[in-house]
Amino acid sequence: MRRIRIVVAYDGTEFHGWQVQPGLPTVQGWLEKVAAEIEGAPVKVHGSGRTDAGVHALGQVAAFSIRNPIPCSNLRKAMNRLLPRAIRVLEASEAAQDFHPRYHAHSKTYEYRIWREEVCPPHRRLYLCHFPYPLHEERMMELAPLFEGEHDFSAFAAADERDELGGSKVRRIFESRMRREGAELVFRVRGSGFLKHMVRMMAGALVEAGKGNLRREEFQARLEPGFAGKAGPAMPASGLFLVSVEYES
Amino acid sequence: MRRIRIVVAYDGTEFHGWQVQPGLPTVQGWLEKVAAEIEGAPVKVHGSGRTDAGVHALGQVAAFSIRNPIPCSNLRKAMNRLLPRAIRVLEASEAAQDFHPRYHAHSKTYEYRIWREEVCPPHRRLYLCHFPYPLHEERMMELAPLFEGEHDFSAFAAADERDELGGSKVRRIFESRMRREGAELVFRVRGSGFLKHMVRMMAGALVEAGKGNLRREEFQARLEPGFAGKAGPAMPASGLFLVSVEYES
Repeated sequence: MRRIRIVVAYDGTEFHGWQVQPGLPTVQGWLEKVAAEIEGAPVKVHGSGRTDAGVHALGQVAAFSIRNPIPCSNLRKAMNRLLPRAIRVLEASEAAQDFHPRYHAHSKTYEYRIWREEVCPPHRRLYLCHFPYPLHEERMMELAPLFEGEHDFSAFAAADERDELGGSKVRRIFESRMRREGAELVFRVRGSGFLKHMVRMMAGALVEAGKGNLRREEFQARLEPGFAGKAGPAMPASGLFLVSVEYES
Repeated sequence: MRRIRIVVAYDGTEFHGWQVQPGLPTVQGWLEKVAAEIEGAPVKVHGSGRTDAGVHALGQVAAFSIRNPIPCSNLRKAMNRLLPRAIRVLEASEAAQDFHPRYHAHSKTYEYRIWREEVCPPHRRLYLCHFPYPLHEERMMELAPLFEGEHDFSAFAAADERDELGGSKVRRIFESRMRREGAELVFRVRGSGFLKHMVRMMAGALVEAGKGNLRREEFQARLEPGFAGKAGPAMPASGLFLVSVEYES
């Protein structure tokens, strides 16, 4: 068997997220269907992690095993021919037999994009969160780096994951910054791993602080082990991009 | 009655073009519905011209008459609150009583965008035409300015408009250029007016020349009054943007 590593971009708008769900269009579901068609047998595709419905990816990493000897560049073309245009295989390459995109990932980088002007351009609307109301952006830029380091992110997990017993909620954040890019406020975060809804809730806590609803100490308290409850609202999926997944070379 | 001039941007993907069609979502249909809701009476919206299904606009100009004394900035906000997010009113202002966006337009500017790389980014796919095959781009850049000046564009009109007797097919083109912008080949054309499908067929003739299917003389022959037939294929709607409509100030 050959182990194939692929880098995939997708527009999450029309999919019910990454993970296979019977009867619903998902990114993993499409990749497995297309790989199976090329292989002539069922193929299991592993991703670096799930993305929720509506979340986009510029560089999701996945892997699967096939016997078909098709060269990688032809495999990429064949997959793109069979996939909907909202999913594109950017790269396909040979990987080590034991390569697993999730277990071997060193870190993942996400960006959350907020459009700050009154009118959101129609052609960008599916790839942004529109928030034209007042925000103390400098305060948000000051607070964003507080996520860096190792913290218990229990307060930044979806309710079903938060209530789950067992399984550490500690994650290491290597980089967490907020910047302005034209009309967009961009939150970029790179970490060892992320809980369900975690990036959207991190962005939500920053927006709450920007609105003046969270003081610095309240913001910091959400990263303390003892904090009971939810850190803040999860921002809408459309603004979130999985930018890349990093591996030790 | 007040005469209101609006500048409108839209994502044409989900609409059956500009013009009202009973039972189908169109841009004019939406604007009339929303203006009527604000006015409390039927409102007729006039545009600078139609755009086909799937064609986008960054700066379409339209006008309508209302009695409602609502200030223009509030009118813009109210319209955007009622419109789908794929249509946005960018500006609303008072205009002369007799202002007609079509009759008074001096020129219109369109851009046609062709993605030249093998893989088309999922987030751009609805706003481009993907053509990754070989093209002699320098030849296309040389030929594009031949459209400038006054010509009979009969060969560059949709079949139903081409066969129509009467009505001059002569149009004046002020600017016609092809340029590279990263991975995109962009055809920009500004003219006094355009026939149905005209920009898409101009782009189509340039692509045929780029493929090597049309020599310079054959290309020029399509602009001669005696030319019988069709200049070339109409390129897909998704690559076309109405950029702006120009008026004498």
